[in-house]
Amino acid sequence: MALLLNVTDPERIEAFEKAFRDFPVRLVRSDEGYDARDIHYIFTWQPVDDWARFPNLRVVFSVSAGVDQFSTLPGHVDLIKMVDGNNTQYVVDYVLAACLACLRRFPVYATRQGQRLWQPDPPRSLANSEIAILGLGEIGQATARALCALGCRVSGWSRSGRDIPGIACAGGEAGYLSLLPTADIVVCLLPLTPQTHGLLSGAFFDRMKPGAALVHAGRGAQCVFRDLGDALRTGQLGVAVIDVFDREPLPEDSEIWGFPNCLITPHVAGRTDAGTAAANVAQNLTRLRQGRDLLWRVDRQKGY
Amino acid sequence: MALLLNVTDPERIEAFEKAFRDFPVRLVRSDEGYDARDIHYIFTWQPVDDWARFPNLRVVFSVSAGVDQFSTLPGHVDLIKMVDGNNTQYVVDYVLAACLACLRRFPVYATRQGQRLWQPDPPRSLANSEIAILGLGEIGQATARALCALGCRVSGWSRSGRDIPGIACAGGEAGYLSLLPTADIVVCLLPLTPQTHGLLSGAFFDRMKPGAALVHAGRGAQCVFRDLGDALRTGQLGVAVIDVFDREPLPEDSEIWGFPNCLITPHVAGRTDAGTAAANVAQNLTRLRQGRDLLWRVDRQKGY
Ligand SMILES: NC(=O)c1ccc[n+]([C@@H]2O[C@H](COP(=O)([O-])OP(=O)(O)OC[C@H]3O[C@@H](n4cnc5c(N)ncnc54)[C@H](OP(=O)(O)O)[C@@H]3O)[C@@H](O)[C@H]2O)c1
Ligand SMILES: NC(=O)c1ccc[n+]([C@@H]2O[C@H](COP(=O)([O-])OP(=O)(O)OC[C@H]3O[C@@H](n4cnc5c(N)ncnc54)[C@H](OP(=O)(O)O)[C@@H]3O)[C@@H](O)[C@H]2O)c1
Repeated sequence: MALLLNVTDPERIEAFEKAFRDFPVRLVRSDEGYDARDIHYIFTWQPVDDWARFPNLRVVFSVSAGVDQFSTLPGHVDLIKMVDGNNTQYVVDYVLAACLACLRRFPVYATRQGQRLWQPDPPRSLANSEIAILGLGEIGQATARALCALGCRVSGWSRSGRDIPGIACAGGEAGYLSLLPTADIVVCLLPLTPQTHGLLSGAFFDRMKPGAALVHAGRGAQCVFRDLGDALRTGQLGVAVIDVFDREPLPEDSEIWGFPNCLITPHVAGRTDAGTAAANVAQNLTRLRQGRDLLWRVDRQKGY
Repeated sequence: MALLLNVTDPERIEAFEKAFRDFPVRLVRSDEGYDARDIHYIFTWQPVDDWARFPNLRVVFSVSAGVDQFSTLPGHVDLIKMVDGNNTQYVVDYVLAACLACLRRFPVYATRQGQRLWQPDPPRSLANSEIAILGLGEIGQATARALCALGCRVSGWSRSGRDIPGIACAGGEAGYLSLLPTADIVVCLLPLTPQTHGLLSGAFFDRMKPGAALVHAGRGAQCVFRDLGDALRTGQLGVAVIDVFDREPLPEDSEIWGFPNCLITPHVAGRTDAGTAAANVAQNLTRLRQGRDLLWRVDRQKGY
């Protein structure tokens, strides 16, 4: 019975070795020889090439909060997402940084800097802004609360419709439509599922307030990038900060690099803490031995 | 007895016309004919060409918080700086936006975007950062308090040495030296005086923590831009957000546009609210008629 550490980061491997020192599960690194039949658990960011290689696999632990990459995982294997307070805080800070950058037009000034163009625009303040958050899970809720505390009006959308004090919440398949016309910034923190695939499209941008901003830290495939480029070029979207892409790393020849008034960050909103990741896995394996339910289990039906 | 409105912004002129509707001082616009001997007060952002043209001038009201541009104003004329809570809040928000942008390396990613280079760096959180504020006046103190409330360690430097709860304060000519080695971000919010001219030099950057960040929203002449470029190129400065320049607008052929890992914003940190500006001037003219001291008077000796 072994746990395959399908990661190369030495910090992560060290954290696991520490957390599992007294734990009755053997750790195996992906670069050492092992019998695939021994592997009951895998800790990984990306899916393995062929799940069938691991006939006794019981649980996959995702390094990341997003788990869309595991859609090919057989249904009988449990999938566990990463929930890490530090990671959540990193994403919250990133969204705050990105929203402020949009209000103060940093991506616009970066574009003008490239053109050696000095052209001031009026600033907007957080306190006078309305921010719509798509996705009110672990991370979306924490983000909504942080923005609320800084004085913005915050609205949010989730599948089930949530009830969060101080936040105007919409639910249902088309619930986001009611938020778009008045939001100064739309922030995407949705998981990638068939329902959210391609959501950020031309029709979506057209319903936004003209000149409003987009912060996208969900998953790349939720955005139709050609439409994003068009909306930025016409000015329907005034400014954008984008952290996730249809292909990552973004290829050198992608036209996305050149989108105007759009800051591109290389998937850095979150960062899973090595120690927390190891502790989370250990905690769940303990629960498994005790016959208790696993924490942070992904609903394979819903896809998140 | 007239007040010369040496501004062209229609919003500002309208606000003055409203505030002075019932006020016994005549408003004169710079584009209409007037007798310079009638002008007792001037509201202006820039100095006039020749102060001697206004023999009866008693008070100059600055549109901006910074007043260094008025060094040629005769000593017997009172100089009033702009103090505007909205403006202060804009600068506070700008500094917060710039500090978060530095911690999340937005200017670095903007530079890499220009090179079509996907290269993630580790994030830093506000809560684990130390921020040194140069200048603890109206704006510096408000900024220090805001950053403190967000969980940063904050230190600050002023001439007199201040005593602000929760903030490690240094005073005296060389007081800033003690703050530089441990600060992750240095924020300049100093007025321009002979003492602060050229302060942000190579020697200054060399004393900073290697790879730390600079946010400069004071005045351009406080920075030796050639040294700033060198420090950014060697990496001694990891990242910078700069709002003020030696020449403004920054000329198209300035090499500053191309400094790496440096976001250039076109002097947009603050923005004086038209209504507040008019109300401030009216308030001071009332005090003058009542024989009371003027508010927000610049100490011409100190230069701020
Ligand atoms: N860029 C980065 O570095 C980074 C880092 C971390 C996470 N992320 C992204 O952020 C996502 C969210 O993370 P999380 O931990 O907050 O996830 P979570 O706790 O699973 O929450 C997901 C939220 O999205 C809502 N949702 C899902 N499908 C929906 C649909 N079709 N329509 C409307 N709402 C829908 C859910 O609604 P219910 O509340 O009704 O279930 C829930 O509120 C991740 O999946 C990942 O893609 C990105
Ligand atoms: N970029 C923008 O859009 C923008 C907008 C607004 C303001 N500003 C800049 O910000 C500056 C500060 O504004 P403010 O309203 O906060 O000014 P202020 O209230 O006059 O405060 C100035 C502060 O700087 C300190 N100081 C002055 N000379 C010093 C020296 N030689 N060494 C150390 N400390 C010194 C003062 O020390 P003491 O406390 O001991 O007097 C005081 O704390 C303005 O002058 C302007 O240049 C820029």
